[in-house]
Amino acid sequence: MSETASGPVQDDSESAFDVFSRRCPSRETLEHVTGRWGGLTLGALHESGARFNELRRRVDGVSEKMLSQTLHALERDGLVHREAQLTNPPRVDYGLTPLGSQVAERLMDLIELVEGRMPEVVEARSRYDATHGA
Amino acid sequence: MSETASGPVQDDSESAFDVFSRRCPSRETLEHVTGRWGGLTLGALHESGARFNELRRRVDGVSEKMLSQTLHALERDGLVHREAQLTNPPRVDYGLTPLGSQVAERLMDLIELVEGRMPEVVEARSRYDATHGA
Repeated sequence: MSETASGPVQDDSESAFDVFSRRCPSRETLEHVTGRWGGLTLGALHESGARFNELRRRVDGVSEKMLSQTLHALERDGLVHREAQLTNPPRVDYGLTPLGSQVAERLMDLIELVEGRMPEVVEARSRYDATHGA
Repeated sequence: MSETASGPVQDDSESAFDVFSRRCPSRETLEHVTGRWGGLTLGALHESGARFNELRRRVDGVSEKMLSQTLHALERDGLVHREAQLTNPPRVDYGLTPLGSQVAERLMDLIELVEGRMPEVVEARSRYDATHGA
């Protein structure tokens, strides 16, 4: 199911990882990717690489602490890379790795579907609240 | 984009909803869809409709309370429907609406990508921990 730095354990037929299983490490990664801020951060970086403060403005509502934690988790999973520029003043750029780009693409497909279908969602909520006395 | 009972809300150019904006209702829906349990619940229902206890077994680790809250939020958003069967004993089946199916398909694309690429993620974590002294 897992492997070490010495080499991946490959299974070409079907993935041995299963997010539905609570102990599978893929569930943790899915949570980093789809968590409250992880998804938006990947989505923002999908548009272009960015500096920390640019990301903070784009991901409206995220705190400095949460964005920092989010970026670290995504960097550790190999989805985001961090590049310190040797400029004066020094600056750090964040961008997606090739795997991060693929993940972000799938996420954007989902985000665009949700955004585009929100009128239906809003209508469903009204109907639900009317019949459930909310 | 879609339409309401009173008439179409049309914007052919681009969706008026933006998950990056903290007050947009689409962000709440995205959180229902990608939240800790929402994503797994939609994924489980994508395979087939199910009763509450079947879902609870499939979404390993979810509590009764959290699954119940998750299903209500997804039902309110119009992604899940709940059907009480007039059997003896009575039972309730949960399934996806057409919109819920489309959302679940996008989610499964993402889940399958993450599961399939976990060997790379696990390797990235080892590298990160080795260089960051974790």
